[in-house]
Amino acid sequence: MSMTELTQVRAAVEARFEASVALLRELVQVPSVLGDEEGAQVVVERRLRELGFAVRSVEPDAARLAEIPASGIPLLPYAGRRCLIGELPGAGEGVIALNGHVDVVSPEPVELWSTPPYGAVERDGRLYGRGAVDMKGGIAAMLLAIEAARSLGPLPATVVYQSVIEEEITGNGAIAAQLAGPRADVALIAEPSGGNVTLAGVGVITARITLTGESGHALSSDLRRNPIDEAYHVIGALRELERELNASPDATFADVEHPYLLNVGALHSGDWPSTSPGKAELDVRLGFPVGLAPAEAQARLAATVRAASPNARVEFRGQRAEGYAFDAGTPFVRLLRSCHEELHGVPAIVDTARATTDLRFFRDTFPTAGAACYGPTGARLHGADEYVELASIKDVATVMALVLRRWRPEVGE
Amino acid sequence: MSMTELTQVRAAVEARFEASVALLRELVQVPSVLGDEEGAQVVVERRLRELGFAVRSVEPDAARLAEIPASGIPLLPYAGRRCLIGELPGAGEGVIALNGHVDVVSPEPVELWSTPPYGAVERDGRLYGRGAVDMKGGIAAMLLAIEAARSLGPLPATVVYQSVIEEEITGNGAIAAQLAGPRADVALIAEPSGGNVTLAGVGVITARITLTGESGHALSSDLRRNPIDEAYHVIGALRELERELNASPDATFADVEHPYLLNVGALHSGDWPSTSPGKAELDVRLGFPVGLAPAEAQARLAATVRAASPNARVEFRGQRAEGYAFDAGTPFVRLLRSCHEELHGVPAIVDTARATTDLRFFRDTFPTAGAACYGPTGARLHGADEYVELASIKDVATVMALVLRRWRPEVGE
Repeated sequence: MSMTELTQVRAAVEARFEASVALLRELVQVPSVLGDEEGAQVVVERRLRELGFAVRSVEPDAARLAEIPASGIPLLPYAGRRCLIGELPGAGEGVIALNGHVDVVSPEPVELWSTPPYGAVERDGRLYGRGAVDMKGGIAAMLLAIEAARSLGPLPATVVYQSVIEEEITGNGAIAAQLAGPRADVALIAEPSGGNVTLAGVGVITARITLTGESGHALSSDLRRNPIDEAYHVIGALRELERELNASPDATFADVEHPYLLNVGALHSGDWPSTSPGKAELDVRLGFPVGLAPAEAQARLAATVRAASPNARVEFRGQRAEGYAFDAGTPFVRLLRSCHEELHGVPAIVDTARATTDLRFFRDTFPTAGAACYGPTGARLHGADEYVELASIKDVATVMALVLRRWRPEVGE
Repeated sequence: MSMTELTQVRAAVEARFEASVALLRELVQVPSVLGDEEGAQVVVERRLRELGFAVRSVEPDAARLAEIPASGIPLLPYAGRRCLIGELPGAGEGVIALNGHVDVVSPEPVELWSTPPYGAVERDGRLYGRGAVDMKGGIAAMLLAIEAARSLGPLPATVVYQSVIEEEITGNGAIAAQLAGPRADVALIAEPSGGNVTLAGVGVITARITLTGESGHALSSDLRRNPIDEAYHVIGALRELERELNASPDATFADVEHPYLLNVGALHSGDWPSTSPGKAELDVRLGFPVGLAPAEAQARLAATVRAASPNARVEFRGQRAEGYAFDAGTPFVRLLRSCHEELHGVPAIVDTARATTDLRFFRDTFPTAGAACYGPTGARLHGADEYVELASIKDVATVMALVLRRWRPEVGE
């Protein structure tokens, strides 16, 4: 029966694949960067309704989020920026959440791209564009999985589809969706995992560090400290902190090379060649071990910065993400792995990521009986010429459809 | 007679000083940054006409400027951005040019200021604001000098007042004014010299250096070169070039400590904490010896950058200024020094600046029989809380008025 079901699911996915790619193209063509996510939500909402979901909208509530320690620190207000909660009742007990973020990061510098970043150009089985694999390809895969699974008969469990914002910066969209909607028993996120089952992510904090100097004429630039130099000094100190963190990895990341990465994301200073700037703004992201509290990571970062540059101002904004590791042996993850093996004939690779995802909220903030990232293959996420392998969307959708057709809560879940 | 004339000039300056400060306040309140100079020109034009000048307007001609090796490399087109040439015929032969630039540099970051940068706040004999001393205080001093000198009778030589743009970035306004107006026999610029007679300036070039990297997700930031790091690498190499230049100073700057300064004016890169940026734009300004051709300085800068970072793009824009040194012994400069000594009772200090000014064009591009910077006292030019000492405007105006009343071309000039 299982072979039969796989064959049926494959056919159902195949039949809907072209429409799914069209949806993906439409999604990629919407530049849904931070603060401008609504255009993508409109596309997802339309599709959810077509699939028979009851859809509710929820704007994240900054005041309520601020009371949740796992929340991120918003850069923008939330008015007019909704998340969607789609609900498709199942025949029996249990709630399986599929979660996808519609926000994408900036495509700048666009001159590095070979195709327009929002062009959704298809070439040699790949679709190129900002968000193609992170994670609009995953959204297309999840919606395709739902449609294919549903086409073969009622699903055993209720499917909750969470279309969220701000995965890339705070995770607050995912929290808001979980707060407002039915709580998930298990969860899948089709973040780009290359078809692996990704169960762990490092802790991540982001910070803006402001170095203030004395602005003045180039003719006396040797008499004062340039905040750009000060920024480099701070970067050097943070690299030392990065080395310290990597010297003592947590158990989950013990075998991963250099798991906790400092990223210097932005540095902006000055506006005139013959003026020494008065200020430099440095945006950094620091990975850190599972088990280290974000507040502790923030304290270490702040202490490092202040030791290097006593007058530096450290502002934590954006990510305040605890590292996480889900169990590969829960019934839900075992089901996912077995469905993967059923399609591919080889075991799923269970791995970790040197990044964070919204999956973390399904561990402690809203505990589940199992959760995983499982998504398409692609490359250059956050970079120029980001793409998704279209065939991998088909594979992910097939495996997910099998999961949707089969998952039922265990007794006691 | 000289004492009498000094007494008369002092009285004439004193009588008009309050109005002069009002004019300065009005000028400082106009944010005449690059591209937005017209508001200040309107103020200067009105005053020139009140003083009896015939005033012409001239827009710099980029094509014609490009043929002049001493010109700078424009960042903006010149349409709607005029220079003024005021002419006040003298009783006899000779043309003395007074030159003042109305452009100011950006006041950012404005939060470093104690008073609004365009507030022109007066406190304890100082007037604060962007451009207060660089060089709207000098403009006020020159216009006051003209009015005071003229009030005591016709002037022997024709006074040409050049109100120019882009001193801060190309010098092209000064070239355009000289091209369009009567050629000066001698010239004064009331750049902030602290009451000294400043006769020399270093060579200055400015450049934008673009470092291109591979943008991508923070989770793989260890796999690629961050262009911010590349920028620091380039800065380090340029500091080495700076050291080399300072190891072999020209004769004019032999006794000046560290005459040729590298200034890192701006660095802009990235827009997302968890993305490695794809590009960094670095704006630098390099001082270099008198006698070194700007093209040679550019070649050395470019070679240094390329040796450090082979894929870096170097774009020369803005300053392409040859170093210059005027003779302290010309009759005109001796006259200026003697008028200074007559007022102050001590000899004028003849000095040099580790910067450039439009004075350089009065040496080779439009040769004169003598030229000097001689202007008010102040501090923090290009910085926060820039100010001019109001009393110094009075002193400079008094000395300049004496010069205007006395200068006649030597035979053969």
